[in-house]
Amino acid sequence: METNIAQLELITKMILTAWDGQNSHFIKLTDSLTDAQLSKEIAPGKNTGIYLMGHLIAVSDAMLPLLKFGEKLFPDLEKVFIRNPDNSGLVKPSIAELKNYRQAVNAKLNEHIRSTTSAQWLERHTSITPEDFVKEPHRNKLNIIISRTHHMAYHLGQMVLLS
Amino acid sequence: METNIAQLELITKMILTAWDGQNSHFIKLTDSLTDAQLSKEIAPGKNTGIYLMGHLIAVSDAMLPLLKFGEKLFPDLEKVFIRNPDNSGLVKPSIAELKNYRQAVNAKLNEHIRSTTSAQWLERHTSITPEDFVKEPHRNKLNIIISRTHHMAYHLGQMVLLS
Repeated sequence: METNIAQLELITKMILTAWDGQNSHFIKLTDSLTDAQLSKEIAPGKNTGIYLMGHLIAVSDAMLPLLKFGEKLFPDLEKVFIRNPDNSGLVKPSIAELKNYRQAVNAKLNEHIRSTTSAQWLERHTSITPEDFVKEPHRNKLNIIISRTHHMAYHLGQMVLLS
Repeated sequence: METNIAQLELITKMILTAWDGQNSHFIKLTDSLTDAQLSKEIAPGKNTGIYLMGHLIAVSDAMLPLLKFGEKLFPDLEKVFIRNPDNSGLVKPSIAELKNYRQAVNAKLNEHIRSTTSAQWLERHTSITPEDFVKEPHRNKLNIIISRTHHMAYHLGQMVLLS
């Protein structure tokens, strides 16, 4: 049994380390790009760096309630960066503000991630009912980390085009 | 103990399902893009769709020896699509040939992935020595799947700009 528990903890850590790696890449990339670079489109007619930066922060913020870590810190981001496209005409926060949001969201996320046990990672997230979770146990908190890591990698591949 | 084994199998399956999801996206995207679209650069002065397609196939092919699944099927891809940049002047296979390679590599990979047990996924891959693996047990076969899934998501975020 000890072996299996150790293996569970090992795999959980592998998944969390992968999330940390993508998130570190996101922080380094957005800190290394100038405001002028972040204001550009990743390709002609496509999203700007600012929009993708806000989008990734909004998606991370939404992980807080989804993982039962608490309320969103910046609920207004969803309308601007998730529910509407870049050219919505909605006012966007400045890059400096976005960097502050990024730091606050990551701090709160990381605090909770660090204190979540392997067993807790396999509990259901808040967008699935207890009844459905019995039939679909893969829809757990850890799977949110997996899918958000891919989502971040996907957009980092785009944002790196700005550099 | 049964609970822990079931949980191990569940997490392993979550990781493999995520890989399948990205790989399916890759197949659908490259099949939906025209040859003209795949021949374009993802952004001015950046890689072409053909190069990224070949790059992802070459990286998948390299997973075969890394995971002890056998030899590479198309060892020549590495020079053109991994060791050298898009503008190397090296002759590239045609898009039709690349699609055949993609199918062959995925068929062989999937065959082996399906027959690998949860315990085997936690064994070392071939680029780490047995001595180092004792100290770094996270450098196992499953972690190759995790990192290659992110790598694929990263480049899919770029290739989708061609559509």
